[in-house]
Amino acid sequence: MKIKAYASRAPSSRLEPWSYELTPPAPHEVVIKVLACGLCHSDLSMMKNAWGMTAYPLVPGHEVVGEVLQLGDGVQHLKKGDRVGVGWQRSACLSCRDCLNGNENLCSQSGGTIVQHHGGFAEQVKVDGRFAFALPAGLDTDFTGPLLCGGLTVYSGLKHAGMTHGKEVGVIGIGGLGHLAVQFAAKLGNRVTVFTTSPEKAEFASRLGAHRAVLTHGGLPKELTESFDILLNTVNVGQDWNAYLSLLRADGVLSFVGVPPDPLNVPVFLLLGKRRRIMASPIGSRAEITEMLKLAQDFQIQPIIERFPMENINDALAKLEKNEIRYRAVLTQAG
Amino acid sequence: MKIKAYASRAPSSRLEPWSYELTPPAPHEVVIKVLACGLCHSDLSMMKNAWGMTAYPLVPGHEVVGEVLQLGDGVQHLKKGDRVGVGWQRSACLSCRDCLNGNENLCSQSGGTIVQHHGGFAEQVKVDGRFAFALPAGLDTDFTGPLLCGGLTVYSGLKHAGMTHGKEVGVIGIGGLGHLAVQFAAKLGNRVTVFTTSPEKAEFASRLGAHRAVLTHGGLPKELTESFDILLNTVNVGQDWNAYLSLLRADGVLSFVGVPPDPLNVPVFLLLGKRRRIMASPIGSRAEITEMLKLAQDFQIQPIIERFPMENINDALAKLEKNEIRYRAVLTQAG
Repeated sequence: MKIKAYASRAPSSRLEPWSYELTPPAPHEVVIKVLACGLCHSDLSMMKNAWGMTAYPLVPGHEVVGEVLQLGDGVQHLKKGDRVGVGWQRSACLSCRDCLNGNENLCSQSGGTIVQHHGGFAEQVKVDGRFAFALPAGLDTDFTGPLLCGGLTVYSGLKHAGMTHGKEVGVIGIGGLGHLAVQFAAKLGNRVTVFTTSPEKAEFASRLGAHRAVLTHGGLPKELTESFDILLNTVNVGQDWNAYLSLLRADGVLSFVGVPPDPLNVPVFLLLGKRRRIMASPIGSRAEITEMLKLAQDFQIQPIIERFPMENINDALAKLEKNEIRYRAVLTQAG
Repeated sequence: MKIKAYASRAPSSRLEPWSYELTPPAPHEVVIKVLACGLCHSDLSMMKNAWGMTAYPLVPGHEVVGEVLQLGDGVQHLKKGDRVGVGWQRSACLSCRDCLNGNENLCSQSGGTIVQHHGGFAEQVKVDGRFAFALPAGLDTDFTGPLLCGGLTVYSGLKHAGMTHGKEVGVIGIGGLGHLAVQFAAKLGNRVTVFTTSPEKAEFASRLGAHRAVLTHGGLPKELTESFDILLNTVNVGQDWNAYLSLLRADGVLSFVGVPPDPLNVPVFLLLGKRRRIMASPIGSRAEITEMLKLAQDFQIQPIIERFPMENINDALAKLEKNEIRYRAVLTQAG
């Protein structure tokens, strides 16, 4: 069956209509009718082959919400008509130490939904059913895509940095990831400070649940020294990381889910006295996806979205590239 | 009362006989008759004012084992004649968040036994009784000093890096700290690999309980990639830290108890895929001292020592400076 999709055929910031033949599902696969799909900065990076792993033509889109159309014989946990979500990860070996520990996201054989595979900016997408997740009834279709990659990434990055409740959490950068991180941390019982260069976003942060906003133009305020348990970095640009490290109190963690271009340059003495830690965290596990979706439903954690009809995807891409999306673009399919 | 001691009066690698007036103990203090005192590389660093915090005359010595001679009225947990140990830390505020959490070693008001205070290379030393610890009966006097600073530091550094049992632990450097780290990790049920530039130490490592020794002259073996849960660095010289990071498997931790002179230079991508962590850990808490001493007794964890009579302390210092001590010097007091 021919599937209508949007693809880039060479490094580019734009997509064009394209179609490809969708073969029937293998035993573990499901075919999903796409209802909505979030637009993540990683889609743009993949379109430009920024990580050197893009196969063209590329159909991006890895925050997919859709309806199960067909299933392979081996898929037991889903049925036709179920509303499901798919995120960045589409496969893992499921037998290595990391997979057996429930850390499929750390599996060395991990595959991506848009890495040598066609993604969700299309009428349909076929994926491994073991990486498709039934959605809680309380989550709205258009608002759930951004949770599946962005939401998962910040939730897992906070959790592995030690977030429980009552922690002092700082979120560096308020974009697609950061605006969800603020909500997860605040609505699950932590005190949240946002760090941003944007007065507009600093102003908006309290509506996301933040208790405090710091404008970072002139450096970091001295009075915040040794006051955070967790600092979650969500941006991909360089910062004065050592200044941020000095804001951590004992056993505090600087957790990276956004990856800056340059190496960190960290004196060990800056970590020593307060036993500070540095870590980085990639997406999240399958267990964490289901856990995160349930929390999002129960605590009304929802992205702020801008909807675009799928055929206007280049408008969304142009706006994303200009950093003008507030805070996540979602492509919707008509009927 | 005049106390005979050994002191440096200016930056130096040698000590000279010196005496000072010991005032009676305040309510929380104890006066200890020194029986033995370990010689730590930090004593030499302090003598040379390497950290810019030395007050001269300096009496070094912060791995003290002795007998309680006098107590202030406020000391309830010790009595005259008790055999006690004192390590690096001599004070903390005991009221801040870190102290209340049992992390006195992270207290910003923390004081050191030889920082603006006279240490254990002397007939007697006066300390805050809250930082003097009754020793388990099964520990030998001459062998216990090195546990109180070196042993504590590696035990706490391993514990906070996640050591339980069955972990793959690498110990970088086999000296005063490293040779104790190997024993704590191996005797508490972990598999230990040592990394050293010394064929002699590599050979010796199995007698400490190590399961494997790697000579690091030609770089690190590729086949060890992604195989360690914990790497504990005990050395103060630069290494290819990113090569070590690549040896960590998922959720693995590079824990620094030795502090290299240059900043780490770490690409965040090297941490991301396997959710690796970097931390540093200073000495240990009071609870950890008592825990560590009990474990040392119960699992026969003992430093390899070279004994020197206290009056020959300059011989011990000269040998330490030439890196010829195997593995810890202990100064003993006659009668």
